Amino acid sequence: MTSEIITPRTELPDTALDPVFELHRGGKMAVRATVPVRDAADLSLAYTPGVARVCSAIAEQPDLVHTYTWKSRTVAVVTDGSAVLGLGDIGPEASLPVMEGKAILFKQFGDVDAVPVALDCRDTDEIVETVARLAPSFGGINLEDISAPRCFEIERRLQERLDIPVFHDDQHGTAVVTLAALRNAARLTGRSLGSLRVVISGAGAAGVAIARILLGAGVTDIAVCDRRGVVSADRADLTDAKRELAALTAQAGGRSGSLASVLAGADVFIGVSGGTVPEEVVATMAPGAFVFAMANPDPEVHPEVAARYAAVVATGRSDFPNQINNVLAFPGIFAGALRVGATRITESMKLAAAEALAAVVEDELSPERVIPSPFDPRVAPAVADAVAKAALDAGVTR
Amino acid sequence: MTSEIITPRTELPDTALDPVFELHRGGKMAVRATVPVRDAADLSLAYTPGVARVCSAIAEQPDLVHTYTWKSRTVAVVTDGSAVLGLGDIGPEASLPVMEGKAILFKQFGDVDAVPVALDCRDTDEIVETVARLAPSFGGINLEDISAPRCFEIERRLQERLDIPVFHDDQHGTAVVTLAALRNAARLTGRSLGSLRVVISGAGAAGVAIARILLGAGVTDIAVCDRRGVVSADRADLTDAKRELAALTAQAGGRSGSLASVLAGADVFIGVSGGTVPEEVVATMAPGAFVFAMANPDPEVHPEVAARYAAVVATGRSDFPNQINNVLAFPGIFAGALRVGATRITESMKLAAAEALAAVVEDELSPERVIPSPFDPRVAPAVADAVAKAALDAGVTR
Repeated sequence: MTSEIITPRTELPDTALDPVFELHRGGKMAVRATVPVRDAADLSLAYTPGVARVCSAIAEQPDLVHTYTWKSRTVAVVTDGSAVLGLGDIGPEASLPVMEGKAILFKQFGDVDAVPVALDCRDTDEIVETVARLAPSFGGINLEDISAPRCFEIERRLQERLDIPVFHDDQHGTAVVTLAALRNAARLTGRSLGSLRVVISGAGAAGVAIARILLGAGVTDIAVCDRRGVVSADRADLTDAKRELAALTAQAGGRSGSLASVLAGADVFIGVSGGTVPEEVVATMAPGAFVFAMANPDPEVHPEVAARYAAVVATGRSDFPNQINNVLAFPGIFAGALRVGATRITESMKLAAAEALAAVVEDELSPERVIPSPFDPRVAPAVADAVAKAALDAGVTR
Repeated sequence: MTSEIITPRTELPDTALDPVFELHRGGKMAVRATVPVRDAADLSLAYTPGVARVCSAIAEQPDLVHTYTWKSRTVAVVTDGSAVLGLGDIGPEASLPVMEGKAILFKQFGDVDAVPVALDCRDTDEIVETVARLAPSFGGINLEDISAPRCFEIERRLQERLDIPVFHDDQHGTAVVTLAALRNAARLTGRSLGSLRVVISGAGAAGVAIARILLGAGVTDIAVCDRRGVVSADRADLTDAKRELAALTAQAGGRSGSLASVLAGADVFIGVSGGTVPEEVVATMAPGAFVFAMANPDPEVHPEVAARYAAVVATGRSDFPNQINNVLAFPGIFAGALRVGATRITESMKLAAAEALAAVVEDELSPERVIPSPFDPRVAPAVADAVAKAALDAGVTR
């Protein structure tokens, strides 16, 4: 549209030459019509009076909303801005650049139409109510950057209430990719998941979800540590979520003590904490260990240090081999779930996603290649197909 | 994305050959990235780690959200599905085809990125709370197809609470275009707005808003009728909204009685009721009258019948001259408001929009041309410029 009136907008003067700010000017996404609106004839089909027939049909047969609107291709990327990247609680507006980024990754990798929804509320009940009320417009809900432990209850209650998939990516996206990398690391070194002694540093959203998916995949010995050491049932300072975690992992490995004490002799370190692990502690791990130091931008163990002791090293960074990146999971998971009209993302669908993701590179395995690149075009279709099939097998489709 | 698994989706068998349903398959809109996401370098700018700098900047200086996200280009098209087209209360899902249609009109005519948000709630408080909570993501709120009288309170309370424009299109879009047509009809026949005796049939969202904008534009003699006749202060059956309307129009014309009784000798009939007005009643209007019979698909007076008595006839239909179509107003109004960072849509901005819309065809006036075609490319830029200027003049910009 042409304009005669140009108004200067607020800017940060010292960022005018920063390419990141240049790129972000005006945002990173737009909507577009997928049908023509050139003349009155087009309008009479896409809008009044024709559209009324489609509305009436959906009113009569509600499932048709998935066929005749964009609902079945869309995901709301919902946050309250309380746990954004490593920045923490920056609020809904400041979280929008991340949500837009997420939305364009959904589109680019999964051909899923995602819409950022940053909420100005914090109370668990309020978030659940709000998302439930806006759910008719969307085919799925991707919860994002909502702080623990609220994220657990919000996801559970929304999934109970809604008949579309609800998925907290910080938990399950990370968990799926971590499991895929662990499977391939085990395959590469001729070990079984059940034989590995695993230590997870970080008992927030990602740590809890990784522990759960590993247990589901056959790992039996897991210690999850927060800042005070292993989350174990003998501690008096645990939240409900951590108490549940202690019970789960007690049935598995059931260790207690400090991070350093449980890392001695461990086969796997999975870092989702943002803390640091000293080299001398890494040195006490079992021979041929796997170190997945996923904190961003500063891994818990620098990958060059980790490589002195570990058989396989992975990070969250794009400038080192084996990047554990959620974008390997969420686009394909939602694409597959939406394609078959899944009403939820089950544990079996997550396991299938991890298996499919691992399988993409299983014939090319090396210590520097236990997980595909985010730009490997085979990834999202493979994950989507596996998730779609798992949804049909689980009988959770509409 | 390729797929091995094809799943049949629900369909209406008898609509398979209907071009409207064919067009609607999969919906009418999509999102797209406006920045490249081809490789790791792109990702490091548009997503982590680069995006964190933009988030931090917005956290520090909140107004930057309008510069560095798509917020300042976006509008949420919000409905509860309670008053959709002529279909009435069909619920949120069934309203989605209309909301998608609206969204693509926003894009096509105003280059505004609009997102359908159909809410699963009806209570006024709940709708206000829900929209306020999701407002951080959007630059404006277009309320749509929410039934009267709730629509009045919802709009008022949201506008009080939010610092972005809130605009109920069924009210103000219709009102702006009606005023533009009335201005040009008066201009064409050499009359002033203040000399016209106006009867509005319909005291819902559109009728109330038309009455208000006409009063603001200088019309002094208005009778608004509902099914029981003129909404006048002596009636005991009025809602709060209608009581307010009775007080407003009493200060103006202040008539009472049946629709037929007030139409006798009236200069202008404006129909937004869906009722019918018999030919013999139209015949009693003043010579050179204007008949705007805007009910869709069946005008209150058939335009060929109206033409026997009236100097200017307008309808809501695209297959007769002078279509009073909201699409002439809302894209330009939001485009102009968003361009200058308006925090609300004032009465002066609506009047400016109507004036600009009327001016587009003022050198081409004829009884069949008191309002431009929706596809006239001059319309949205003219409306946007006028609204932007009026917002700056009113001092309601950020």
